[in-house]
Amino acid sequence: MGAAEAIREERLWRRHADMAKLGGTPKGGVNRQALSAEDAAARNLLGSWAKARGFSISTDAIGNLFVRREGSDPNALPVMSGSHMDSQPTGGRFDGMYGVLAAFEALEALEDAGVKTKRPVVAVAWTNEEGSRFQPGAMGSAVFAGHNDLDQMLQVKDWKGVVLKDALAETLKAAPAPMREGKPGFPLDGYVEAHIEQGPRLENAATTIGVVTAIQGSRRYIVTTEGEEAHAGTTPRAARKDAFAAALRIAHAMYEATTDKDDMLRFTIGRVDVGPGSPNTVPGRTTFTIDMRHPDDAVLEAHEKKLKEIVAMKAAPCTAGIERVTAVPPTNFDPMVIDMVRAKTNALRLTNMDMPSGAGHDAMHIAHLCPTGMIFVPCERGISHNEIENATPQDLAAGARVLVEVLAELANR
Amino acid sequence: MGAAEAIREERLWRRHADMAKLGGTPKGGVNRQALSAEDAAARNLLGSWAKARGFSISTDAIGNLFVRREGSDPNALPVMSGSHMDSQPTGGRFDGMYGVLAAFEALEALEDAGVKTKRPVVAVAWTNEEGSRFQPGAMGSAVFAGHNDLDQMLQVKDWKGVVLKDALAETLKAAPAPMREGKPGFPLDGYVEAHIEQGPRLENAATTIGVVTAIQGSRRYIVTTEGEEAHAGTTPRAARKDAFAAALRIAHAMYEATTDKDDMLRFTIGRVDVGPGSPNTVPGRTTFTIDMRHPDDAVLEAHEKKLKEIVAMKAAPCTAGIERVTAVPPTNFDPMVIDMVRAKTNALRLTNMDMPSGAGHDAMHIAHLCPTGMIFVPCERGISHNEIENATPQDLAAGARVLVEVLAELANR
Repeated sequence: MGAAEAIREERLWRRHADMAKLGGTPKGGVNRQALSAEDAAARNLLGSWAKARGFSISTDAIGNLFVRREGSDPNALPVMSGSHMDSQPTGGRFDGMYGVLAAFEALEALEDAGVKTKRPVVAVAWTNEEGSRFQPGAMGSAVFAGHNDLDQMLQVKDWKGVVLKDALAETLKAAPAPMREGKPGFPLDGYVEAHIEQGPRLENAATTIGVVTAIQGSRRYIVTTEGEEAHAGTTPRAARKDAFAAALRIAHAMYEATTDKDDMLRFTIGRVDVGPGSPNTVPGRTTFTIDMRHPDDAVLEAHEKKLKEIVAMKAAPCTAGIERVTAVPPTNFDPMVIDMVRAKTNALRLTNMDMPSGAGHDAMHIAHLCPTGMIFVPCERGISHNEIENATPQDLAAGARVLVEVLAELANR
Repeated sequence: MGAAEAIREERLWRRHADMAKLGGTPKGGVNRQALSAEDAAARNLLGSWAKARGFSISTDAIGNLFVRREGSDPNALPVMSGSHMDSQPTGGRFDGMYGVLAAFEALEALEDAGVKTKRPVVAVAWTNEEGSRFQPGAMGSAVFAGHNDLDQMLQVKDWKGVVLKDALAETLKAAPAPMREGKPGFPLDGYVEAHIEQGPRLENAATTIGVVTAIQGSRRYIVTTEGEEAHAGTTPRAARKDAFAAALRIAHAMYEATTDKDDMLRFTIGRVDVGPGSPNTVPGRTTFTIDMRHPDDAVLEAHEKKLKEIVAMKAAPCTAGIERVTAVPPTNFDPMVIDMVRAKTNALRLTNMDMPSGAGHDAMHIAHLCPTGMIFVPCERGISHNEIENATPQDLAAGARVLVEVLAELANR
């Protein structure tokens, strides 16, 4: 029996259902934010499954969780696959979790099929990919890759003022695992991450597998407008400095300036805070976030210029500023891994298409360490970061079959 | 010595400074929300001043605080003057407090000048005029006038879930005063409220006294847009149902539809909530408040129709709704009181102009009980509901002189 045949669709689906109970919401989604009690519960559940199969587990100083199936060559570098188990505040059951469970299913399939590999195969659950409780996101993989400083990250606070270091200690106390010595990060021979597309392209093309060629670049900004609080009943329009009206003019112009013909640019205002927030007081201050993404960094650069011009032009009579918070350039995956994913998909007779990833993923950090690629499967109507996020057992299993074939080949190079 | 000559500018100014320490903010304003510890402290301070002058104090079941100077005729109905001592979260030192301290200064001036009146003269501090912690505002005067039901109001909760009844009990425990029996409200022969204009008209016209003829009508609405949460990086514009983008289209059209040539219509979006509020999630829900005011109810009616049309027109691909929360018709004050205020102002050789009030005031409820009027004084640049709200000792004293003359005449009718 080959590894792909040993993938068990119902086992993989049941594991998703079991994980969805941890932080499950009435609408059928999950609220399993990074380093929460629900996160700890998910770590314990994965650990118990690993133990049952005789796989070893370990964690590192940022809380990344590793499940390891040994290879035959004690000196060979491991190949790794995985994603994250934390979710958005109103997240779905497949975002991240699928990549972790598909990797674990691959380990089980290799075991069930009696496939020996030269290299160890490691399933990983990266800490805090979502970045909704602690910023920045993709934190665990970024620290593993040396892109973020461990000590800085340990000092990050959530909006309640909880320090990440303390939340991590709580989590590892509730979900203990052997601690790896030293700073996070160890040499890898290859990395492949499976994930739901989180967009509608595969479903619209009636295609099962997305061969991911790259991750688009993304930039985040905070726009602030300052006006003057005034009485809503007495202050004539001409005498007002309405900070929300100014933010609205700016945002309105920005939506227009980012409306590209081919609909490739992603522009989102996701968080808006208006102060003081009293119905009968003219707002004195407004801040909002911008998330802008495109596969071509030059396009992002050009639009950043436009956004800055709009802020300068539309603020009066208020004052306004725009601050760039992060800028992640596009990531191009390894041609060898891309070709291998495409080849295995074709060998399994699965429909497939090459595509860039619209979302950021932990793979964008690991791609700097070793040959890296990703495998996408469709999700219903492309909806993600939403409690109604959905995918089919068949598609999830298909992606796992491609994954285990790729891992088996990488692990025997 | 006449009553007006007995008004002491520096005493009135010092009392404002003393009150401003209670809930004082770093920016020089006050945060003295209704039935807070700061509100209780203000009640105690006013009570101590009353006691020092031999005036009697009492409170009622909604916490309105009365300071009474007796008249010569035990059977005569009292005349009353006052306003409120609660503030916006980021409020100024004069909004409301001036009306209470001017009324108290009037009582002291009558005392100092040895003016006997037939009727009792009562200074009042109404409970919760601002309505920023507990809705609706002008609660104490509305209950006093029978426009709001006492038992309903006692059950109102603030945003933390604190029940008004409990907050009121706390406040009266910290600031005890003899309780009046029965439901709030008693017969009055007249009511005059002094207040800062909270707008720029008096200052722009270099005029000291506003003879207030009416209070403009006001209506409040909540607009809600419902879309679909989606991933900010992967979801093409064409596939989005962005609840904030829809709210922005609606708000933008509303600002345009309410831009009247004579700048008499007051349109304010003061509170905006965008959910789930994650920078990398397309918003699935947005709500915002509308505060709209005009002296002519027909104009409000016509614009309400426009707002409803805009909500229906601009929501797609999201859904949206608009709900009217309150509608207060314009209040016209009593011609006898208006003429008396104008006459006393002219007799004191103070510049004056007739004007409607842009803001709602407790007087709009009391106007249904007895002959009622208001006296406005300028505030710096018309700024109110703002920590930098300011007024001059001279203007405050001038308003108090007009007030005491009017009260003395009303109290001897």
